[in-house]
Amino acid sequence: MTKFDEATQVIRVDERTYDVCLDDGYSLGGPLNGGYLLATVLRAVVDSSPHDHPVSTSAQFLRAPRPGPARVEVEELRSGGTVTVTRARLVRDGTAFVETLVTTASLDGDAEPAWTGRPRVRMPPPEECVRLPGPRPDSNMNFGAQVDLLFDPATIGWVSGAPSGRPESRAYFRLAQPQDPDPYVLALAVDSLPPVVFSSGARGWAPTVELTWHLRALPAPGPLTLLGSGRLVSDGWFDEDVEVWDSAGRLVAQSRQLALVGRRGA
Amino acid sequence: MTKFDEATQVIRVDERTYDVCLDDGYSLGGPLNGGYLLATVLRAVVDSSPHDHPVSTSAQFLRAPRPGPARVEVEELRSGGTVTVTRARLVRDGTAFVETLVTTASLDGDAEPAWTGRPRVRMPPPEECVRLPGPRPDSNMNFGAQVDLLFDPATIGWVSGAPSGRPESRAYFRLAQPQDPDPYVLALAVDSLPPVVFSSGARGWAPTVELTWHLRALPAPGPLTLLGSGRLVSDGWFDEDVEVWDSAGRLVAQSRQLALVGRRGA
Repeated sequence: MTKFDEATQVIRVDERTYDVCLDDGYSLGGPLNGGYLLATVLRAVVDSSPHDHPVSTSAQFLRAPRPGPARVEVEELRSGGTVTVTRARLVRDGTAFVETLVTTASLDGDAEPAWTGRPRVRMPPPEECVRLPGPRPDSNMNFGAQVDLLFDPATIGWVSGAPSGRPESRAYFRLAQPQDPDPYVLALAVDSLPPVVFSSGARGWAPTVELTWHLRALPAPGPLTLLGSGRLVSDGWFDEDVEVWDSAGRLVAQSRQLALVGRRGA
Repeated sequence: MTKFDEATQVIRVDERTYDVCLDDGYSLGGPLNGGYLLATVLRAVVDSSPHDHPVSTSAQFLRAPRPGPARVEVEELRSGGTVTVTRARLVRDGTAFVETLVTTASLDGDAEPAWTGRPRVRMPPPEECVRLPGPRPDSNMNFGAQVDLLFDPATIGWVSGAPSGRPESRAYFRLAQPQDPDPYVLALAVDSLPPVVFSSGARGWAPTVELTWHLRALPAPGPLTLLGSGRLVSDGWFDEDVEVWDSAGRLVAQSRQLALVGRRGA
């Protein structure tokens, strides 16, 4: 079992309850990465469903849980031949931290697209991409050690005080411990980029309010390409769209989150 | 009170329950328009919230309700100074038809964007746009009479058997009975276009499984511009993104839905 599979594992207590242990390794200086929380919730949902794949997940992030034991509570809202809809909540001591609605279905791994768009921007080849500097040792920013992100340099000028001026973030993604991508890795991937508003000039913790992502195909082995962008930064809110393309050049996941712009220096 | 305001009105029964009456005028030949259902649910959510605006709404469409009396059940999941998160369900006789998670907040009507993208496609001027032919009189496709959609001709070749080959749908939008747009009108607007897959060659009822939309700004009076597109049609599923721009040229709403491709002739 890989570290990621272990960190996201769920233990069935009864037909509506799973025990989980939230891993400090996915901490972002205190709060845990939202994609990591979703991957954990989705393992419980899929275990409870007659279907194999989390096709659509929408999540509201109510509170930031600390690492440690927690539970996923699942409730089947509708089940049919094609899809099952489940309400799933990450709770501890009776308090909900993440609230989700999930549609599961069974995707065909051999399906060929009837129609597909192309990436809207071209990534430079990996050898022209760069890693971000590591966090300060005392920062508890552990998440960065779990993933290997190779950034399009054009999107990380903010690191050296020269943001591009546009909300964007693009990188090649792998887990630090090698593992073929699956739907749970995709749940992590869609929330693993630095906030797109960093490159439009904002800084600080940018809490996700809502994140919806759709699994569009089962990913091929190999690195993923994450293309993140935003359409509007206004009134303290921004959107972040992430498209995930697999090593075979297929669009495998789409996400959009609505988040609050951080305060500079926060 | 306009017809739309009347059709979406909610009557408070107690702090968790609202009575509604689902209007046959929003029928799509049987099922009711999903955006209409969301507008109704959102009126109850906002009435129950300390905040004024439905900033983020994600909905799973479990079953298609018939017209007639129903209820919206609301449950506050978290409330703070900036946002309130509410679970809201459209139910009848104890059966849930639509399940939603909604974040409410109070937007500043005078906020100027810190950064904004531009429309990705240019709409032809209204005088070059066209209406769709009316439905067959016996079809119970009443929804079309509630809205006035002026289509970009490039996106409705499918009507005459010449689809563009790309998933797209673009139109100017007004309510048939004049009314300035507000967040509830936007909830209707984001689900009012013909499915984008019609222009990539699919036909038939395309049931929405999940729809998430974000209110990004309060719309100015006047017509709205709806820009709909898809990124992938595969394995029986498609995505539909709709951007809503107001008459002042501002992005006021973003939606994405995941839906099932209809069967031809269905």
